[in-house]
Amino acid sequence: MADYKAPLREMHFLLHEVFAAEKLWAELPQLSGVVDRETADAILEEMAKLAANTLDPINRSGDEEGCHWRDGEVTTPAGFKEAYATFCAGGWGALLGNPEYGGMGMPKMLGAQVEEMLNAANISFALYPVLTNGACLAIDAHASETLKRKYLPRMYEGTWAGAMDLTEPHAGTDLGIIRTRAEPCEDGSYCITGSKIFITGGDQDLSENIIHLVLAKLPDAPKGPRGISLFLVPKYTVNEDGSVGGSNNVRCGSIEHKMGIKASATCAMNFDGAQGWLVGEVNKGLAAMFTMMNYERLGVGIQGLGASERSYQNALAYARERIQSRSPAGAQQPGQVADPIIVHPDVRRMLLTQKALVGGGRALSTYVAQWLDIAKFGEGDARKNAEAMVALLTPVAKAFTTDMGLDCTVLGQQVLGGHGYIREWGQEQLVRDVRITQIYEGTNGIQALDLVGRKTVANGGALFEVFATDVQNFIDSEVDCEAMAEFIQPLAAALQRLREATGNMIAATREDPCAPGAASVEYLHLFGYVAYAFMWAKVVSVAQARQEEDSFYRAQVKTARFYFARLLPRTQGLAASVNAGSAALMDMEEALF
Amino acid sequence: MADYKAPLREMHFLLHEVFAAEKLWAELPQLSGVVDRETADAILEEMAKLAANTLDPINRSGDEEGCHWRDGEVTTPAGFKEAYATFCAGGWGALLGNPEYGGMGMPKMLGAQVEEMLNAANISFALYPVLTNGACLAIDAHASETLKRKYLPRMYEGTWAGAMDLTEPHAGTDLGIIRTRAEPCEDGSYCITGSKIFITGGDQDLSENIIHLVLAKLPDAPKGPRGISLFLVPKYTVNEDGSVGGSNNVRCGSIEHKMGIKASATCAMNFDGAQGWLVGEVNKGLAAMFTMMNYERLGVGIQGLGASERSYQNALAYARERIQSRSPAGAQQPGQVADPIIVHPDVRRMLLTQKALVGGGRALSTYVAQWLDIAKFGEGDARKNAEAMVALLTPVAKAFTTDMGLDCTVLGQQVLGGHGYIREWGQEQLVRDVRITQIYEGTNGIQALDLVGRKTVANGGALFEVFATDVQNFIDSEVDCEAMAEFIQPLAAALQRLREATGNMIAATREDPCAPGAASVEYLHLFGYVAYAFMWAKVVSVAQARQEEDSFYRAQVKTARFYFARLLPRTQGLAASVNAGSAALMDMEEALF
Repeated sequence: MADYKAPLREMHFLLHEVFAAEKLWAELPQLSGVVDRETADAILEEMAKLAANTLDPINRSGDEEGCHWRDGEVTTPAGFKEAYATFCAGGWGALLGNPEYGGMGMPKMLGAQVEEMLNAANISFALYPVLTNGACLAIDAHASETLKRKYLPRMYEGTWAGAMDLTEPHAGTDLGIIRTRAEPCEDGSYCITGSKIFITGGDQDLSENIIHLVLAKLPDAPKGPRGISLFLVPKYTVNEDGSVGGSNNVRCGSIEHKMGIKASATCAMNFDGAQGWLVGEVNKGLAAMFTMMNYERLGVGIQGLGASERSYQNALAYARERIQSRSPAGAQQPGQVADPIIVHPDVRRMLLTQKALVGGGRALSTYVAQWLDIAKFGEGDARKNAEAMVALLTPVAKAFTTDMGLDCTVLGQQVLGGHGYIREWGQEQLVRDVRITQIYEGTNGIQALDLVGRKTVANGGALFEVFATDVQNFIDSEVDCEAMAEFIQPLAAALQRLREATGNMIAATREDPCAPGAASVEYLHLFGYVAYAFMWAKVVSVAQARQEEDSFYRAQVKTARFYFARLLPRTQGLAASVNAGSAALMDMEEALF
Repeated sequence: MADYKAPLREMHFLLHEVFAAEKLWAELPQLSGVVDRETADAILEEMAKLAANTLDPINRSGDEEGCHWRDGEVTTPAGFKEAYATFCAGGWGALLGNPEYGGMGMPKMLGAQVEEMLNAANISFALYPVLTNGACLAIDAHASETLKRKYLPRMYEGTWAGAMDLTEPHAGTDLGIIRTRAEPCEDGSYCITGSKIFITGGDQDLSENIIHLVLAKLPDAPKGPRGISLFLVPKYTVNEDGSVGGSNNVRCGSIEHKMGIKASATCAMNFDGAQGWLVGEVNKGLAAMFTMMNYERLGVGIQGLGASERSYQNALAYARERIQSRSPAGAQQPGQVADPIIVHPDVRRMLLTQKALVGGGRALSTYVAQWLDIAKFGEGDARKNAEAMVALLTPVAKAFTTDMGLDCTVLGQQVLGGHGYIREWGQEQLVRDVRITQIYEGTNGIQALDLVGRKTVANGGALFEVFATDVQNFIDSEVDCEAMAEFIQPLAAALQRLREATGNMIAATREDPCAPGAASVEYLHLFGYVAYAFMWAKVVSVAQARQEEDSFYRAQVKTARFYFARLLPRTQGLAASVNAGSAALMDMEEALF
């Protein structure tokens, strides 16, 4: 397996040339003194080193060893504890944190690149700090000042980690039916009792404490999702002076044996009268979770992206080294018994598909991160516009980038032929690891329902228009550029196809409540391919003029050309399927399946 | 995980109603006394029991335990030895064998159904007899009478197993560059020396001997694929009386640690002056392998089909039991806290996609098996026509059905949400197991090159016309049936799309040697979707009229409707991609990847 090398050039190009991040940062008061191009590049370079030197080397071994559970305690694989210490010592846990409590207050646009490197090197490792980040976001947004002062600084340090405890054996997608109970105590705290499953980092041996955010119901809570509250429940109680006290009746009952991310502990957690504190308002626990959800969901998309990039790097290295058969255009290396397989058109198809999807995914993640930053740090109409973009694009960034993540890692595995199936080559691990990203943090089917339902049909396509306007403005701005015509024309046609599908779906819903659900996943894919086309057109609009000066730009233009010629046409079949309506799905009696 | 239940009804329907197998069998002299409907159904019923009661129960445990290697000897997981003994006692190894040497001489149309059950229950187990079958086919077709009498009866019994030794560390797809040597001995045998990798069942503890078919080069052999010969090399020498003698310097050096099929031993084999016997003519080893290749490749397609069926059964059982959220059309089971997830349109999409692809794959496998039978047992023009069909359709049946196998198992896993990612639920194993079917027996990329190159461009589309004529004749025969119009019109359009893509590709190749390779995989998928549409239309032409009498037929019609509405449209994007030419792939300088 090739060593991981972070794609810093691509990241600089996107941040500084395509999205002009520095200009945005200078305009936003909370960022202007905090981050500029030089700082950002220095941060990226440091993470590139950490990913390559510390996290990548324990990725394969972590998969082989897995986590261990004994008597309620989880041990992570060899090297994880040391790597976590290095991570914390570098201050990485504080990167996006609130400066009032010790965070660095950096923008998500930068954080997205950092996360890509973390995940490309080691998804299992990355999950520990990622879950802590998520917990911090929810605490920062909704907890009392007391809780924030007590917990956030230690969590930003990484001394304490976080975990999100939502799912129960009978309640995954449908959190409205959870059974975990929260009984009010006299001192204002709550007594939490119940069982949770699939808790990432629910227990581990990396941090001295674990801060659980637990969804539970008060005794008098209304039924369904409007009766759920959120509680902060530490594994060990925390004394008044901030030191760690004794056990809080939070126990890891077992860990799951999974397809992948084996070095990430997926825990069944038992809360047996554990002491917890309310975060946010009573019965508004789900809303409190949603604050961090956009960040987390984009983050999962970036996991798919990281695995894709890693898979591409390995496949490319193999395709350049492995010699097998001759090019159809005649021997390219007559001195050898065969040519390197990168000469074969179909191997190039597999590599370019990965490269085009990775480039599109990285650009889309950065674009969504930009809107998250404006939604967080901006004001007025700009902020409103950004919130609309975030709401609409988050399910696409999560689901499409992870669906493409499976495709990319499968292609990267296929380039290696038989060796791709052998564990020591590392490619098959990426397939197993990335597969979870399509499932957790809301399955991709749920993302698609969110996109078509709450985000599109419910507002009559108003959010869609915000996005479509951004695409159309870009098209209008480039329409006179002859060199861009080969991209702008198919982009306009694809946008039109998406617009029609959107309109059809909204119209169909008036008479058919099953219409959005029937179209949802294919609609999300249609949307995703159009969004990537938009991203590639933006990339080309910068790269086109500089092709002569640097082959990096030429590679961008040629990859975009591949995307438009070979991948964007998939929208044709997707649109036809979206427009087919729900009858073919719903007419089947249940007994006939 | 649901217990496996063989889809006997579907198999009977295809054999007896859609493909009128009994009529064909009666017409072919070598089959007419051997098999009729009653015999066939009895055989299917027996295999259904073996699969459910003996093979399915050791599938998960075999995956967890895996194979063991110690001092050159492989041990299979617990229960495999006993299951293999039961398999052999049932005479299953002889099913398709040549009656002259103890085989039952059954048709492949029946064998295809038997194989589906074997693979649905336990791909790892199935591989041991499957490889023996392949070796028997090559021996039967090419070995001397002495070798056949000595080896075939024991191999049909299963007392001895077979293995195919092709790949070497530096030579997989490109067998022309293998290095294993065969030195002629004075007694007419050969002395074989070399190393092979990825040898399925290269060693195991199931049978008392293992008969390797080894590709090697004579000292004076021409370079490349025309200098390869095939040798029979037993693990233990066989005495004149047929009893097993001593070691033959065939040693298993190690076994691979793989993504899946962990109970199937994938061996590195060392031949250190082992005694071997020529099979077929000197330097025509590859041709001798190709005799069995069509059977083996269809067999791999059926592995993809079996895994898909198994995944569908599990997903369906889960979707009926798991309750979560409400139907968009309103509560379907108001007495429960939520509805079973099969009410949700997107869950139905996942299930119906599996059902439609499984049905299409089963019909296509049966259709190709029918042509294999006519090519083997038929005569004159009918035989020639069948050979053309087999040549053209085998790469489609292998690659498309296994690519759809990955899609189906991933969908089946997705239906289970988080539980799909947990090993004990069994769905993730199917994804890991089926993934190899896209790689071995010629990667799916190689299948696609075979389809576009040797099978299409090389003969100017003559083979394609044989298939297209069969489709067109069917269309013509149904064109006046009003009830069939909804299927016949889109089938005709899809055939036209495939015909145009075929013509474009052939034309492009005249000026661009990279054209077929650039279009290959998407062309194969386009072909596959059209072939499945043809199969579903054939199914409907039988089922349509009987819908009222039995809901089984109604299910067929509704599944076909789903296929045409939601899956066949994918051909639009595929055709556009095929027609885009090779420029987007080949213009990228190697350094720019």
